[in-house]
Amino acid sequence: MNQPQEFLDDRVCMAVEAFQFLKSTTIAVRAAFMHAVADKIEGLGPELLDTAHAETALPLVRLTGEKARTVGQWRSYANAVALGIYTEARIDLPNSETGKSDIRKFNLGIGPVVVFGASNFPFAFSTAGGDTASAIGAGCPVIVKGHSGHTRTSTMMADAIAAVIKDYGWPEGVFSHILGDNVIGTDTKIGAYLTAHPRVKAVGFTGSYWGGKALFDIANQREEPIPVFAEMGSVNPVFAFSQLLEDRAEALAKEYAASLTLGVGQFCTNPGVFIAVKGDGLERFKKALASAILATAPATMLNTGIYAHFEKNKATLSGQAEVSMLAESSVEAVQGQGRPRIISTSAHNFLKNQVLSEEVFGPFAVLVEAENAEEVLAIARQLKGQLTITIAATNEDVRVHQEIFNVVKDKAGRLLFNGMPTGVEVVYAMQHGGPFPSCTDPRFTSVGPDAVKRFVRPLAFQNWPDEFLPVELKNENALGIVRIVNGSATKASI
Amino acid sequence: MNQPQEFLDDRVCMAVEAFQFLKSTTIAVRAAFMHAVADKIEGLGPELLDTAHAETALPLVRLTGEKARTVGQWRSYANAVALGIYTEARIDLPNSETGKSDIRKFNLGIGPVVVFGASNFPFAFSTAGGDTASAIGAGCPVIVKGHSGHTRTSTMMADAIAAVIKDYGWPEGVFSHILGDNVIGTDTKIGAYLTAHPRVKAVGFTGSYWGGKALFDIANQREEPIPVFAEMGSVNPVFAFSQLLEDRAEALAKEYAASLTLGVGQFCTNPGVFIAVKGDGLERFKKALASAILATAPATMLNTGIYAHFEKNKATLSGQAEVSMLAESSVEAVQGQGRPRIISTSAHNFLKNQVLSEEVFGPFAVLVEAENAEEVLAIARQLKGQLTITIAATNEDVRVHQEIFNVVKDKAGRLLFNGMPTGVEVVYAMQHGGPFPSCTDPRFTSVGPDAVKRFVRPLAFQNWPDEFLPVELKNENALGIVRIVNGSATKASI
Repeated sequence: MNQPQEFLDDRVCMAVEAFQFLKSTTIAVRAAFMHAVADKIEGLGPELLDTAHAETALPLVRLTGEKARTVGQWRSYANAVALGIYTEARIDLPNSETGKSDIRKFNLGIGPVVVFGASNFPFAFSTAGGDTASAIGAGCPVIVKGHSGHTRTSTMMADAIAAVIKDYGWPEGVFSHILGDNVIGTDTKIGAYLTAHPRVKAVGFTGSYWGGKALFDIANQREEPIPVFAEMGSVNPVFAFSQLLEDRAEALAKEYAASLTLGVGQFCTNPGVFIAVKGDGLERFKKALASAILATAPATMLNTGIYAHFEKNKATLSGQAEVSMLAESSVEAVQGQGRPRIISTSAHNFLKNQVLSEEVFGPFAVLVEAENAEEVLAIARQLKGQLTITIAATNEDVRVHQEIFNVVKDKAGRLLFNGMPTGVEVVYAMQHGGPFPSCTDPRFTSVGPDAVKRFVRPLAFQNWPDEFLPVELKNENALGIVRIVNGSATKASI
Repeated sequence: MNQPQEFLDDRVCMAVEAFQFLKSTTIAVRAAFMHAVADKIEGLGPELLDTAHAETALPLVRLTGEKARTVGQWRSYANAVALGIYTEARIDLPNSETGKSDIRKFNLGIGPVVVFGASNFPFAFSTAGGDTASAIGAGCPVIVKGHSGHTRTSTMMADAIAAVIKDYGWPEGVFSHILGDNVIGTDTKIGAYLTAHPRVKAVGFTGSYWGGKALFDIANQREEPIPVFAEMGSVNPVFAFSQLLEDRAEALAKEYAASLTLGVGQFCTNPGVFIAVKGDGLERFKKALASAILATAPATMLNTGIYAHFEKNKATLSGQAEVSMLAESSVEAVQGQGRPRIISTSAHNFLKNQVLSEEVFGPFAVLVEAENAEEVLAIARQLKGQLTITIAATNEDVRVHQEIFNVVKDKAGRLLFNGMPTGVEVVYAMQHGGPFPSCTDPRFTSVGPDAVKRFVRPLAFQNWPDEFLPVELKNENALGIVRIVNGSATKASI
């Protein structure tokens, strides 16, 4: 590798040292730091957007929104950290009658975290993205393995974070940014080396199933296994029901086509499978969908690797038995562009051929036509874990199909009613993660302030003098956070 | 195996079915159920204690306390569940100006959980122990693989839970109790089979490193990996400092000997390593410790397997180079009894010979004599993850040895100041778990209401009509729980 092992070891060592420093910071200080990073990113001008556009082919308007979202992530996570939500301070006071001890617990950072930037969000899920923000909020130093698809963009973001570290006088090891040389295999080696490093304590990843699962396996085969949160995408099925189709087949088709082709279909939550029972409503939907897809022009994908995979996977699924072409963009694509396509098949065929359930990263979907609700239920039961499942239905449709609704609750992290899943809002209530294989641990999210939880661990202090306790647990509640004291939530000092 | 595979499959299938039922229960209903289990266990009379005593050789007074503790676990976890602490309801209301959606998230059970009872706590960490209580509190059906060391006790406990299930009219599959036939290897096979079962979604375990690690590996090699919380014990080092030793060497020796030999040393938090710098204080401590150990009679261990391991491991550590016998109980042990012993060695030798850091489950310790504080710091740095670390010190000692204090914060789940770690109180602030290898995931605890967290996962609802939302997320806050609404904690309805 072009990054010699010594260099990687040195960055890990710096992170270990920085962790000792971060342990001494309060949530208030870390929150202020995070707002300063947000300010710095906000201040990066058109050069950032132009660079990202050149590297990813994503439109400037989309990148402008993603930049604002990324700034918002740093700010909202900072605010949540400052509130002490992830500190989870619990204090049980001693009782001389029962002999009970003084025990106090709070969450602190788990240690150095390795973050893998994703290709499809050069700001929000990359070098200065949500994983980095949540790890620093938790009190963990971060080592980012920057994505090879947008190295200049990532470097600008890394420089912004480094500048704030310098302003704050923090140790350089709080944040490291490692780039491979784009030779195939090199990035993978760096990632594997960092994940296996004994001083690394957790991993955050967004990307493909194969990439995430490989890191998960490395992490679990270490002498000391470590937690890996890998968000690995899914096909995000949409289940549409008869009344809804009857009421608004054409409108739904437009929304679905727009969601499917948004950002050239390059979203983890892209709705790649559509399931409905045959009938007039579905026929109207198909017609409207076909014309929407016909009219959607191909667009340049993130990079040549993703384009090549899209072409290959699209061909594989399209070549399965008992599959027909429903619609394809009427415009021929040039090399590097994703040309939207939708194939259709029967529920019977979809149920028996697992290949049709595989994710095709790009503007591609499988429309599944069921004979009846029983087949739809069978598909719901057979589904693997998903980031999202969408129910396109009237209230009455849901009442009639309660069992399907109940089954899909076990299959996804987020359930949508009559919306499209491609927007992943950065709010407390967001769940971005789901049962395997969409994610390696369904108990956590990588979007929203709750993403911080992945990187904290509890530490209890028994019978310690106030002097030695972390500020979060001292008698005086100087930070004004909510603490559970003797079983009751309170902001009062002791 | 004497439990044919069909039987195990059937119990898992019943658990899957019961999970659908449990998803429909509210936290209030589950809390009431848990109090009913507590009542039922409370009502089990002397027969339970006598049975457990016959099976484990644990004294009746200890078992009486453990029974009360177990009842207390069910009640305190129930109260925490009812408060909605683990529901973590978050609601972000829609905003027509910004176009933001209505998103609501809460935690529900992860699915069927397999629990492995421990040998050393036939009530509190076994069939009706903390893992079972926390999983049911989370809304998960439980399949217990009962420990072979106390099958009649476990069966009485299992019958108590089954009776409450019947009283409540709940599906039988909410709780299953599986026993092997005590043939070596059979229990292991049952455990492996259940852990590998595709419909099982999480595992709770308390026991040996080898047992826990084997289950962890099986779970991570499944097609769908699942979380395993395995608490695997540790040596729970005690670091004693000079001023404290000067002030109270004799008192500390008594406390330490009592903690080390409590329950024939059969605690996960047994303090098996004692470290101090040479000097008058340590000499006084050694003398007092030796006489306390000499005077402590051997006692019957939990079972012949544990006794055999104790004898073997004690001999292995005692047979290492540069080790000498500090003290042994003056009373010869008969077959099956654990005879307390303490060996001593230099810090230099302890640092270079990893065998001396291995856990010996029973009344055995290694006293490590350091030349200076640097050697003590080196030991702290070299330590693997521990459930507990104890600092025996004056305030001034801690001030002088800040660096050691800071290093041990990364090595344990619970830090004690001048106490002994063998008491594990069932309170919110308890942390029972720690960095690997004491535990497979340092982010969770198996004691205290927070144990529930291991078995919940978040599910988000986007744009759903109130009618279909779980009661925890409806506009009306019928359960009166604290919810984070638009970023602020509130009990108000919407």
